[in-house]
Amino acid sequence: MSVIDSLVAGFKAFRVTNFEQRPALYEALVNNGQQPEVLMIACSDSRVDPALLLNSQPGELFVVRNVANLVPPYAPDDNYHGTSAALEFAVRDLKVAHIVVLGHSRCGGMDVLRKASWGEKPDREFIAPWVSIAERACDCIGHEAITGPEGSRLVEQAGLKVSLENLMTFPWVRERVEAGNLTLHGWWFNLEKGELWGIGDSGEEPFIQLV
Amino acid sequence: MSVIDSLVAGFKAFRVTNFEQRPALYEALVNNGQQPEVLMIACSDSRVDPALLLNSQPGELFVVRNVANLVPPYAPDDNYHGTSAALEFAVRDLKVAHIVVLGHSRCGGMDVLRKASWGEKPDREFIAPWVSIAERACDCIGHEAITGPEGSRLVEQAGLKVSLENLMTFPWVRERVEAGNLTLHGWWFNLEKGELWGIGDSGEEPFIQLV
Amino acid sequence: MSVIDSLVAGFKAFRVTNFEQRPALYEALVNNGQQPEVLMIACSDSRVDPALLLNSQPGELFVVRNVANLVPPYAPDDNYHGTSAALEFAVRDLKVAHIVVLGHSRCGGMDVLRKASWGEKPDREFIAPWVSIAERACDCIGHEAITGPEGSRLVEQAGLKVSLENLMTFPWVRERVEAGNLTLHGWWFNLEKGELWGIGDSGEEPFIQLV
Amino acid sequence: MSVIDSLVAGFKAFRVTNFEQRPALYEALVNNGQQPEVLMIACSDSRVDPALLLNSQPGELFVVRNVANLVPPYAPDDNYHGTSAALEFAVRDLKVAHIVVLGHSRCGGMDVLRKASWGEKPDREFIAPWVSIAERACDCIGHEAITGPEGSRLVEQAGLKVSLENLMTFPWVRERVEAGNLTLHGWWFNLEKGELWGIGDSGEEPFIQLV
Repeated sequence: MSVIDSLVAGFKAFRVTNFEQRPALYEALVNNGQQPEVLMIACSDSRVDPALLLNSQPGELFVVRNVANLVPPYAPDDNYHGTSAALEFAVRDLKVAHIVVLGHSRCGGMDVLRKASWGEKPDREFIAPWVSIAERACDCIGHEAITGPEGSRLVEQAGLKVSLENLMTFPWVRERVEAGNLTLHGWWFNLEKGELWGIGDSGEEPFIQLV
Repeated sequence: MSVIDSLVAGFKAFRVTNFEQRPALYEALVNNGQQPEVLMIACSDSRVDPALLLNSQPGELFVVRNVANLVPPYAPDDNYHGTSAALEFAVRDLKVAHIVVLGHSRCGGMDVLRKASWGEKPDREFIAPWVSIAERACDCIGHEAITGPEGSRLVEQAGLKVSLENLMTFPWVRERVEAGNLTLHGWWFNLEKGELWGIGDSGEEPFIQLV
Repeated sequence: MSVIDSLVAGFKAFRVTNFEQRPALYEALVNNGQQPEVLMIACSDSRVDPALLLNSQPGELFVVRNVANLVPPYAPDDNYHGTSAALEFAVRDLKVAHIVVLGHSRCGGMDVLRKASWGEKPDREFIAPWVSIAERACDCIGHEAITGPEGSRLVEQAGLKVSLENLMTFPWVRERVEAGNLTLHGWWFNLEKGELWGIGDSGEEPFIQLV
Repeated sequence: MSVIDSLVAGFKAFRVTNFEQRPALYEALVNNGQQPEVLMIACSDSRVDPALLLNSQPGELFVVRNVANLVPPYAPDDNYHGTSAALEFAVRDLKVAHIVVLGHSRCGGMDVLRKASWGEKPDREFIAPWVSIAERACDCIGHEAITGPEGSRLVEQAGLKVSLENLMTFPWVRERVEAGNLTLHGWWFNLEKGELWGIGDSGEEPFIQLV
């Protein structure tokens, strides 16, 4: 059976479960529209699916997934800003109450950024410019630390902080955060150990283990 | 219990299942790295999670999610191209064998595009430019059809075709497709009926029901 | 990790899901008591768990599991009648609307009965007397058929009919069935093919494929 | 949709998942036969499904379910002993390494036993004789305690100990336990709190919280 046939079979299971056996959830999601309380900005990595990681149900999470779960800074112009468009829709139209940026260990995108910090650039067109969003994360980590055994984690977690800072450059995000109507969270999933770490509430504190 | 506490509880369930009860999958995903065969480009809509819709497991799908599951055209420059960066990583680094663009009914993003076709523009900074990627999809549909009862579906499905066409503007996508090493798929999920439709193999044919 | 530790880990996942993340179901099941509509009489075989096979949720199925999903005939006395006690509780106290007897292929218990039909008795104390409940099922199948390639299926399906007949020997079952308040079903799960077959409504017809 | 149609739909989901999308598990379970390491003796209560409670997969648990998860004492004769037959098959044929007796709070069967201790007998034919298996559990608890707020728990947990004691009356159970090839466990699930408690290893100690 090909992988595509397998996914189509997976959809059949979803269909009979959600449209025959237990139709109430999708009936409500169609009739009332989606009303997620959370915008999740996660990595495209196949090992970091938010619905699977957080055991969530359809309708609970509005999800952006890009390489290295990055948020670019506010820059309204005529270019195509996919992440900013999703952010705008979630915040201004759906009025989510929480934004979670969900990073993780073993992040290939963040590794490109880390290696770029000592001049090792990949032969790629889009990845290096994209992950450079978090460039200043690397600048704060000394060369010794970034090349050390904890280097990847340091870059991944510093990158999370950059995304959270960039979120605050969007005026309609900042306004809601300051009014107490929107809360920002930075989470980091340790793939090897199955741990979840979060940025302390002040944003200045180190990461603390949530699970 | 707050929604955030609920998600943290969900992570606990994921953790005990995948790191205590059945650790083999994540051990392999850490030791061997991710090896997904499929890049899934799906919408951020909370009702359209690919892992839930396709009953997939961690490691099976490399996922991009943005508003209206759009792929912009190839444009290598120094701007931040999130979707193109993920596409590049999936195709050139992970060497996926399939790309599935997964659209759906009741798509809020595509509705912005549809309304823009008759001049009704939202008071938003990023959404309208972003969905204009699929603008030419609307141009092919007559005004009467686009405002009719099937208008949303026509725009959503035409938008899928634009994304598939745009995929072929990336030279390293086209090359692999033409060599037979990469297959592109366009799927459309009917939220009301729980159906899955796909673009016929030739790309010229109308959508056919898969499930 | 031992199998017992693994099951304890599984309970942790159940706990966080059902008592932290989504407590509503068990709160209702505690406050309102159980109100299952279905009594399921299934085999103890580890491959035939009704909740997994039928994708059911806690509270939906009142379940008896014994070797070969057998129902003994009505025999009220002071002996220990486990299956009859569960049947009585389900029908008279919980007032279920349906009883499903769920058999399956590759049934080890039914195979003991089949072999006993030509005199091959196991060196066991309880199994042979127990499965003899369905002895008359074998008597109706000729020796040639019972030893043939379809022999196991024939015995398994004939055993199902015996259980359904025995159900009707319980006066408070028969009464409810005749009043139209209780319906009996005989299902047979084909383990090799993933098929579900059911006895035709008249009870006289052959098994028909449900899925 | 009737409850029966809903269960048939649930089987469809099971079928596509386990026979189309991921056929490896059932292929192995058919080709190699079942090889469960654990016999689980659980209650028929719809809120206490072992597979759901312990997040187990097909093939992992050989399951007996009867009212109040009782094990009668060893009594080889020609009567129908369903629980003993399943016990014999699990221990002597499948050679399980563990037997878990899984009780729970809010047990209707144990409540019948508790009320019978002060003479309140139900108008039922099979339940009272069946639960009398654990009669001596009540005898050890004083009248004041058994009618008090902790009375149900005390009877449920004492009933578990009776079942464990009765298991040891089966010669081929005792032999394997004494040889170190079989371990007996008594677990009690608190429905209100989502807790799992277990009998201490010595069997003499009080229940300790496992989860």
